[in-house]
Amino acid sequence: MKRTLGVCYYPEHWPEPQWATDATRMADLGLTWVRIGEFAWQRMEPEPGRMDWGWLDRAIETLGAAGLKVVLGTPTATPPRWMVTKHPDMLAMDAQGRPRGFGSRRHYCFSHRPYRAECARIVGLMAERYGPNPHVAAWQTDNEYGCHDTTLSYSDAALGAFRDWLAQKYQSPDALNRAWGNVFWSMDYAGFDEIGLPNLTVTEANPAHVMDFRRFASDEVAGFNRLQTDIIRRHTDAPIAHNYMGRITEFDHFATGADLDIASWDSYPLGFLSDRLEVTPEHKRHFARQGDPDFQAFHHDIYRAVGRGRWWIMEQQPGPVNWAPYNPDPLPGMARLWAWEAFAHGAEAVCYFRWRQAPFAQEQMHAGLLRSDSVAAPAHDQAGQVARELAAMPDVEPTAAPVALVFDYASAWAWQTQPQGRDFDYFRLVFHFYRGLRALGLSVDILPPDTADLSAYRLVLAPGVATLSPALLGALTGYTGTALIGPRSNAKTADFATPVPLPPNLPGLACTVARVESLPPDLPVPLAQGGNFLHWREKCEAAEVAEATTDGWPALVGQGALRYLAGWPDEEALARILRGLCAERGIATLDLPQGLRCRDSGARRFWFNYNPDPVTHAGVTIPAAGVHWQEL
Amino acid sequence: MKRTLGVCYYPEHWPEPQWATDATRMADLGLTWVRIGEFAWQRMEPEPGRMDWGWLDRAIETLGAAGLKVVLGTPTATPPRWMVTKHPDMLAMDAQGRPRGFGSRRHYCFSHRPYRAECARIVGLMAERYGPNPHVAAWQTDNEYGCHDTTLSYSDAALGAFRDWLAQKYQSPDALNRAWGNVFWSMDYAGFDEIGLPNLTVTEANPAHVMDFRRFASDEVAGFNRLQTDIIRRHTDAPIAHNYMGRITEFDHFATGADLDIASWDSYPLGFLSDRLEVTPEHKRHFARQGDPDFQAFHHDIYRAVGRGRWWIMEQQPGPVNWAPYNPDPLPGMARLWAWEAFAHGAEAVCYFRWRQAPFAQEQMHAGLLRSDSVAAPAHDQAGQVARELAAMPDVEPTAAPVALVFDYASAWAWQTQPQGRDFDYFRLVFHFYRGLRALGLSVDILPPDTADLSAYRLVLAPGVATLSPALLGALTGYTGTALIGPRSNAKTADFATPVPLPPNLPGLACTVARVESLPPDLPVPLAQGGNFLHWREKCEAAEVAEATTDGWPALVGQGALRYLAGWPDEEALARILRGLCAERGIATLDLPQGLRCRDSGARRFWFNYNPDPVTHAGVTIPAAGVHWQEL
Amino acid sequence: MKRTLGVCYYPEHWPEPQWATDATRMADLGLTWVRIGEFAWQRMEPEPGRMDWGWLDRAIETLGAAGLKVVLGTPTATPPRWMVTKHPDMLAMDAQGRPRGFGSRRHYCFSHRPYRAECARIVGLMAERYGPNPHVAAWQTDNEYGCHDTTLSYSDAALGAFRDWLAQKYQSPDALNRAWGNVFWSMDYAGFDEIGLPNLTVTEANPAHVMDFRRFASDEVAGFNRLQTDIIRRHTDAPIAHNYMGRITEFDHFATGADLDIASWDSYPLGFLSDRLEVTPEHKRHFARQGDPDFQAFHHDIYRAVGRGRWWIMEQQPGPVNWAPYNPDPLPGMARLWAWEAFAHGAEAVCYFRWRQAPFAQEQMHAGLLRSDSVAAPAHDQAGQVARELAAMPDVEPTAAPVALVFDYASAWAWQTQPQGRDFDYFRLVFHFYRGLRALGLSVDILPPDTADLSAYRLVLAPGVATLSPALLGALTGYTGTALIGPRSNAKTADFATPVPLPPNLPGLACTVARVESLPPDLPVPLAQGGNFLHWREKCEAAEVAEATTDGWPALVGQGALRYLAGWPDEEALARILRGLCAERGIATLDLPQGLRCRDSGARRFWFNYNPDPVTHAGVTIPAAGVHWQEL
Repeated sequence: MKRTLGVCYYPEHWPEPQWATDATRMADLGLTWVRIGEFAWQRMEPEPGRMDWGWLDRAIETLGAAGLKVVLGTPTATPPRWMVTKHPDMLAMDAQGRPRGFGSRRHYCFSHRPYRAECARIVGLMAERYGPNPHVAAWQTDNEYGCHDTTLSYSDAALGAFRDWLAQKYQSPDALNRAWGNVFWSMDYAGFDEIGLPNLTVTEANPAHVMDFRRFASDEVAGFNRLQTDIIRRHTDAPIAHNYMGRITEFDHFATGADLDIASWDSYPLGFLSDRLEVTPEHKRHFARQGDPDFQAFHHDIYRAVGRGRWWIMEQQPGPVNWAPYNPDPLPGMARLWAWEAFAHGAEAVCYFRWRQAPFAQEQMHAGLLRSDSVAAPAHDQAGQVARELAAMPDVEPTAAPVALVFDYASAWAWQTQPQGRDFDYFRLVFHFYRGLRALGLSVDILPPDTADLSAYRLVLAPGVATLSPALLGALTGYTGTALIGPRSNAKTADFATPVPLPPNLPGLACTVARVESLPPDLPVPLAQGGNFLHWREKCEAAEVAEATTDGWPALVGQGALRYLAGWPDEEALARILRGLCAERGIATLDLPQGLRCRDSGARRFWFNYNPDPVTHAGVTIPAAGVHWQEL
Repeated sequence: MKRTLGVCYYPEHWPEPQWATDATRMADLGLTWVRIGEFAWQRMEPEPGRMDWGWLDRAIETLGAAGLKVVLGTPTATPPRWMVTKHPDMLAMDAQGRPRGFGSRRHYCFSHRPYRAECARIVGLMAERYGPNPHVAAWQTDNEYGCHDTTLSYSDAALGAFRDWLAQKYQSPDALNRAWGNVFWSMDYAGFDEIGLPNLTVTEANPAHVMDFRRFASDEVAGFNRLQTDIIRRHTDAPIAHNYMGRITEFDHFATGADLDIASWDSYPLGFLSDRLEVTPEHKRHFARQGDPDFQAFHHDIYRAVGRGRWWIMEQQPGPVNWAPYNPDPLPGMARLWAWEAFAHGAEAVCYFRWRQAPFAQEQMHAGLLRSDSVAAPAHDQAGQVARELAAMPDVEPTAAPVALVFDYASAWAWQTQPQGRDFDYFRLVFHFYRGLRALGLSVDILPPDTADLSAYRLVLAPGVATLSPALLGALTGYTGTALIGPRSNAKTADFATPVPLPPNLPGLACTVARVESLPPDLPVPLAQGGNFLHWREKCEAAEVAEATTDGWPALVGQGALRYLAGWPDEEALARILRGLCAERGIATLDLPQGLRCRDSGARRFWFNYNPDPVTHAGVTIPAAGVHWQEL
Repeated sequence: MKRTLGVCYYPEHWPEPQWATDATRMADLGLTWVRIGEFAWQRMEPEPGRMDWGWLDRAIETLGAAGLKVVLGTPTATPPRWMVTKHPDMLAMDAQGRPRGFGSRRHYCFSHRPYRAECARIVGLMAERYGPNPHVAAWQTDNEYGCHDTTLSYSDAALGAFRDWLAQKYQSPDALNRAWGNVFWSMDYAGFDEIGLPNLTVTEANPAHVMDFRRFASDEVAGFNRLQTDIIRRHTDAPIAHNYMGRITEFDHFATGADLDIASWDSYPLGFLSDRLEVTPEHKRHFARQGDPDFQAFHHDIYRAVGRGRWWIMEQQPGPVNWAPYNPDPLPGMARLWAWEAFAHGAEAVCYFRWRQAPFAQEQMHAGLLRSDSVAAPAHDQAGQVARELAAMPDVEPTAAPVALVFDYASAWAWQTQPQGRDFDYFRLVFHFYRGLRALGLSVDILPPDTADLSAYRLVLAPGVATLSPALLGALTGYTGTALIGPRSNAKTADFATPVPLPPNLPGLACTVARVESLPPDLPVPLAQGGNFLHWREKCEAAEVAEATTDGWPALVGQGALRYLAGWPDEEALARILRGLCAERGIATLDLPQGLRCRDSGARRFWFNYNPDPVTHAGVTIPAAGVHWQEL
């Protein structure tokens, strides 16, 4: 497969005479894809029922005529103002009980059935009209589900749907009361219509209540998406994608992804570094104009899994953005490096966001490939360079990663519901393990939590998986590689209770977590062989102790296929443990300096220098923000 | 009196066949008491008016048969879901105007009269049934009044009751307007029904308004409690307790305690250290697995005063809890040390919370004496050791403390209403003085603010008492010991105005606070003899100046029985001043190293090592988390 | 003109027999003015329509008889409780949608038309009665517009008025949609009655929407004020003032000031230092008892501009206040220094707030010239000293400042609406430039943004002016001094869009801002000639580069009359650049040590030592908190 580039474009923002010029410039730059339409409901349907497709017909024709392929987005993330008049109760409610008003985007509640019907209607009209259009080569549903904290809604619509969902799941209030342990504080319900949403309780709500609400909310997103994919598929064979947003874990991307052909995500390395990473100030400063060296790769690998191999970058940061606490300019070369990192991880396409910087409205400070005055911005020429490099290079082949890491959205909900310590965050934990692998030069596959076959991997990590699925437990039985489980894995039943016998209950591993402790940042638990447990540690009763803490508790349990890690290792401990496990299994590791990363793709190794200075490794010097590839 | 141990138990959480085994194990461990019932309203009354006492009858019988004595709790902290259907307006409202919903606990408003009637009904039924039961040897009302910020409610029920309370107090709006100084910003009221609750005002509400609301809210708690004690007493002579929570000062525990036989409190040393103490990060780190060395003792002494000598620990932390920001595992031995510290301070009983860790609902991560799989947790054996030690030792005799410290809940409200500086907190101030005394090896009595006789004490401290009561002012007149008053004592009239003549207006002490200043943490005021004033200092005009600041203002005023301290002393200044006053009065002091504390009980001195390492003092080495006692 | 002193007084707070004594003491102290009445609506009109003027008649008579001149305040900042009963919807709403309740002050919404009618009624009655009174020599409207975050209200009244305002401005929804760029996220409106207030949107609202709401809200304040001035002027020729509050930028003081004769402001140097300044902890500590050395001067210069030359201090801090996070006592002498600093900047009068410390209600901890027991507080004698010094000195003459600085309230709204970086605040930016000028010993004039003639100044600075007005652009064309424009000047169109061609679009200056970046505090951009850009920098394409950054971008552009600064300079860079520009234009500069400041007034130079220690400069030693003047 040939990797391609693309761009996001909003014909409705520009005078029609400009479209053809824009399209020509895009094609000349070497772009293949142009995504359009996802915020244009008001232009498609200016009044309820009065459709205006003419402009969109012409825009698609203009783009197609220039040789571009169109990704057409459904506009359901931006219902027009008249929609709110028609359905005043369609607005989501926040956890404080306030309606989330019209005036920006994503102001709908996933559970509002009449709004879903409106979405089905507009998607149906679009699919019917453009499904057969030869220029429309892919579709996108909605835009960035869950962004701006929109997965969970506390509206009446959500309440009603949640009660139905619970009734479906439990069949009787008694079953629910037992499953949740409602006897605890006289919290029993006599009927499903007595159950509320778990916000605004005096102290914490029952975590089983919260978890079910989160499972429900995730299902609502999947259902909302499926409504659209079902309709689109009736009219076209073009692949359907959704553009996920970075570090959004409130809904299960695997579940939503099951109804899609392609997973894509919106990659804003500098925004994410400024906004959503637990790193030191020094780290933020060092990578301020390059982005974190592992955050994008981690998402690439997640979405390759979500897309069952097929994934894109639907929006790639081209310059400063407008929404992070601080918005520096990327180092020259980063718009190229980010694209190549995506391709090295198997991206089919990388689309820059956006073609031309809008001079108006919310994102007027968000860079594009062109400035608002249509002059090329720095990313424009870098995109051109990538296009030429792609053309000159044989295809990027998929990698057989030796190592896999399980990622489970439900565990993110579990530990947000019950962190037990202020710093226990599932994404943070798994990302920490991912960074540890990558610092050893390893290419990694992400696995969904219901993976039933691990035989392709010599090493599998499953930290923090709240409840191991039957499939995964099955795969671990008789596994011949090495699986590192824990900390805090298999610590909950499906009903969000503590299992008895106590965790982790791993087949063939004599290990019982007697109790756990969460730790303030300045209270590490040293390991006898070096490094520490931070944030979290478990006191286990175990037979085979491979490592211990200096205070005499097992740190690493097991000698065989299954190992249990009884705490959150710091960087030093993690590197040592991973290096040891890799050595056991014959997996070659490197010792990469800060900011230098690599990724194998077929027989080619790609190198990425995220540092603001050149770095020399194994005799090769890579410039700042530089990409280098070599045959292995 | 023989000191005893106990445990909190929830028969409704476990299969009935397990009860007898549990009871036998409790008795075998040496426990005397078992507290039950306080969250079980739904099990007692599954539907409005349909009572189910059978399970409770059998549970009490089973426990009693094993030789255990039952503390029976009224279940009014957890009204069932049907109660909210019956009385939708019974929910408390928070200061932001949001109802505090069903789904956890304490979701009632103290002022809601129909809910009070429901409470009277269930308590009456319980008292009638179990008052005569020989196994029910004590009662507990409700659970942790005020916990989760539930003293103050901004509901319509509270508004109505507040207006009635004001009408009762002031008789006429004019009297209220004058008392509050409502002329200040045209805030006068023409009738009591015009008065609102003091939340959501544009800028701060009139502090007199706020103070009256706080006095009212405290009265509501006392009235709510009295309703229950009056009913219980009609059916039994067994003592009645309430379990107060640490550092809850929103209602007057002395006033509530006046209707109770026993004061008890719930002691969670590690949770409190993590959650509610103004100490340095180093202090938190050092004591992370032991708890603050003075916080528990301070509460012990407060509740000995609240209980007029009779007090318990109703809930004692046994291992990691679930609710603090960080929840580390206590050092081995702490479950024993904490119990002995309580006994040394005169506790009649110490009950661990809870028997077995629940595997479900909100507190599934809260340790018990048993793990969820019924295996003994570390605290189990420590409790057994305490039981054996208690049996082997003559009784812990009461102490004649040489020093007393006044604690006044209304002052906590006063300075929360009008801190005048960000760091001025009454509890923090008094606890600072308490810690200063205890670091000198002193045993301390806490006195209520209306104490009329100080003759038992050679030294009395009364920092920060907003309004000295007539009783205390009387006791100070002709007092022959030394009383250290201030800072900020007698600074307000009963109407929360500045007295004219200016404070402190102490009999026989020529001292006028000309003005005050609050200070940021980095702006200390040095004292000429060493140490500093921090946070707060007063500029006084005074005749007898015992100490001065380096900028020339009186720091300590008076030479006789009454001394006035014109600022918040730092640790060094406080130690020096207290040592001097003690020396004057012939009170022997020690100079204890960090984390080592002692408490006299009769002729026995108990030593407690809160450090994570052994400490040697006066030739004796006490291990980490160790307890030592010696005859004096 | 003879400069005068005054005081704020509340006869309604004190027994009538005390008034005459107070008046005599005021006069004896050398005070000229006494401001009264501004919170006394309830005393003027105890019930709707029942007026009680007697007490006010007598108070004015008593004060006048002592030789004092009265400033009479309209009481509209404190509508009585009965007003809220009469107009329940008059309350402002906060951005969270909660009504801002009765019980303090400023609880009205500027947009509530019936409340405006009530204000017109009471002001009319007052003006009719006291306009002819010979003792009433000045008027004050309302009190501290905008204080306590009261400019923006999200009430229904505000919504209705905003829609009307928009309809007036845009005439058609289509015009509004185009101006705002509502096509961006399908945010178009079909009618003005569809438009909401820009709070509680899911993510940020359209900045053009927010800006129009801010413009509207500012207009509402001006309209509210004009209603009062129009009425007062019908009955008197006495000058009318309003007392603005420090660092309130939510409404345009120039626009409000256009209807007033005198600008005045309320100067609380210690409160402001503690509460509203972005300075280092060391700076706060050093000036804790003196106040920031530039903050007051900056406001003096702003209000001299707002008052078109005529300005007062209406409230001058006399001792500790009650409302800041920390409230230390001023250093002895500061109450004098602050007054002299005001006079040196051209104040006609300085009124201390307040005569006697109130012993009751919200401000009982706010110092006065007298203590609550009527004893003189330290500021009393300092005020007396200033009175004597004024009497002994020839008048303070106005200054011809060589340097001017543009201050534009709309730019404060613009960059609050769209900071783009967490630390970008307009007031902070301009104050930073002001401080830079003042550290060079310069006297400065503030100019409104529509200034059409700059010829009086050799140097003009205009940092951060979002949209340069046609008048100012005109003045810059052909300007013969030096104008330093930028950073971020002329960066927006009047519709809050990015201009195309790109900014700054300065006549005769070849400079295009290609892109901008906001920077975290630890990511400075070094300048080749020393110092750094902090927080913000722009990458420009420019012809004449006067300075560059070390990474090779223009830092300072232009050689002629117009210069463009492409970033936020740190102290070092700013001092260097300003010194250079001054040297070019022959403006003499000094190099003042920390805390020493000067201000020229006619041929006299005033020196102010804000340090807590004496400072020696140019052979003269000025004591701590000292004032010194010399003839030039």
